[in-house]
Amino acid sequence: MSKEPARHGPLIIIGGHEDKEGDKIILKAVAERVNGGRLVLATIASREPEGYLDSYRKAFAPLGVTDLVELYVEDRAETHDEAKLAVLDGAAGVFFSGGDQLRISSQIGDTPIEARIREIWRAGGLLAGTSAGASVMSDTMMVRGPSDETHRIGDLDLAPGLGLVRDMIIDQHFAERGRIGRLLGAVAQSPRVLGVGVDEDTAVVVEGDAFTVIGSGAVYVIDAESVTASNITEARTNDTLSMFDVRMHVLASGDGLDLTTRRPTGPSVSRAG
Amino acid sequence: MSKEPARHGPLIIIGGHEDKEGDKIILKAVAERVNGGRLVLATIASREPEGYLDSYRKAFAPLGVTDLVELYVEDRAETHDEAKLAVLDGAAGVFFSGGDQLRISSQIGDTPIEARIREIWRAGGLLAGTSAGASVMSDTMMVRGPSDETHRIGDLDLAPGLGLVRDMIIDQHFAERGRIGRLLGAVAQSPRVLGVGVDEDTAVVVEGDAFTVIGSGAVYVIDAESVTASNITEARTNDTLSMFDVRMHVLASGDGLDLTTRRPTGPSVSRAG
Repeated sequence: MSKEPARHGPLIIIGGHEDKEGDKIILKAVAERVNGGRLVLATIASREPEGYLDSYRKAFAPLGVTDLVELYVEDRAETHDEAKLAVLDGAAGVFFSGGDQLRISSQIGDTPIEARIREIWRAGGLLAGTSAGASVMSDTMMVRGPSDETHRIGDLDLAPGLGLVRDMIIDQHFAERGRIGRLLGAVAQSPRVLGVGVDEDTAVVVEGDAFTVIGSGAVYVIDAESVTASNITEARTNDTLSMFDVRMHVLASGDGLDLTTRRPTGPSVSRAG
Repeated sequence: MSKEPARHGPLIIIGGHEDKEGDKIILKAVAERVNGGRLVLATIASREPEGYLDSYRKAFAPLGVTDLVELYVEDRAETHDEAKLAVLDGAAGVFFSGGDQLRISSQIGDTPIEARIREIWRAGGLLAGTSAGASVMSDTMMVRGPSDETHRIGDLDLAPGLGLVRDMIIDQHFAERGRIGRLLGAVAQSPRVLGVGVDEDTAVVVEGDAFTVIGSGAVYVIDAESVTASNITEARTNDTLSMFDVRMHVLASGDGLDLTTRRPTGPSVSRAG
């Protein structure tokens, strides 16, 4: 993946199951940034995207997003289709819905559609994604690996993502599916990369070199730079992961992270951390 | 609870579902410390303890624990019963099986049975407990609180435990039930107390001022002394917990913790940490 320049639009990375009927805090944040323009609902992650467009139309319309159109691709050949590409013309943002993150990267990775989506973002447009659509935003994405158990060396499957956020690996449905073990496993392999676990109905809004948390749950940031010992390289693949001195931040709505210093920020804490 | 003197027997604190048919690493560790003596299976945590004795007899007999007897109390009045107390005579150890930790503390707390169990321990005997029997060993124990979600201030229910380990709060079935959120909530309230989350088929063996991990999963140690900011005191009860700079150790079999310095120890790391 080519390196992105520093100037681009915001990212809204959602942990899945964002509220569509109540306060809709996360969808509101999307709507504000689209600001009355066209929003493209990319349902590529799903094998059966029927119903997604209706559901999001109902949720978004009262928030002023009235030009919501669907982008779906059955196979890679379609990514060259001018009619498909035209859906993206003049879009103010793209919203990736859930499903299987490998479908997104394998169907549109390195295609004209991906290029067009990047152009929208580079020009200041919004990219948002929920669940699988969240995972796919990192350089290296988690594609499977058991939830609800402690990581065993060798259990993890990683794949290249779209590379919109650097040095960050994203996991979603985080507390709900007990995924701390697999995220620890991912960052153990590469302590330079921050682990970011996003709960359901919770999102990180990345703008410039910082993100802010919105929504009802928490975002767990796992920073392995502080780790003093780990068995990740010595252990056999069925061994249980061991790591000493992991630093973790539990961030709630209003908190955030300075991506340059990796320091958390919050209502009660100064930016200097 | 009265303070325990420093001299006493070991504790084996098990996260539930210890292997009873394969290598039986944890039950072996129990058997070794009982060393051919009587082991009392305290099934007090369960409302329906039928079958527990049979199951543990089958598992323990090949390991040399042939004098395995059951201790059950229907209600507190029975804790003064001489016949019940006699079950504990000359026991080399007591093993608390699973169920509801509140049943243990409410049925035997501050009774002659609890006093007799402490005597056994003070004289160097073993106390072991699995699942609810593990939770009850701390001063303050977790009795409920949702798994699989991020902690909300005010969600947590704590109750006095037997107070065999100090400054430690224990949670079990840890990775399997996604309990990181509730353990973080517990230590946020009292950073002096270490959070210790024990996976299934995994145990901490406390001997002197240190513990060692055995079994197939991991033990998560959450140390909130390093925390630089938290909303635990300001937030309303339905707010999501926020905490910056939590220190966490993920310990696998062979790793341990020095309880005086709170530093992890492991095969690849010197005790000095």
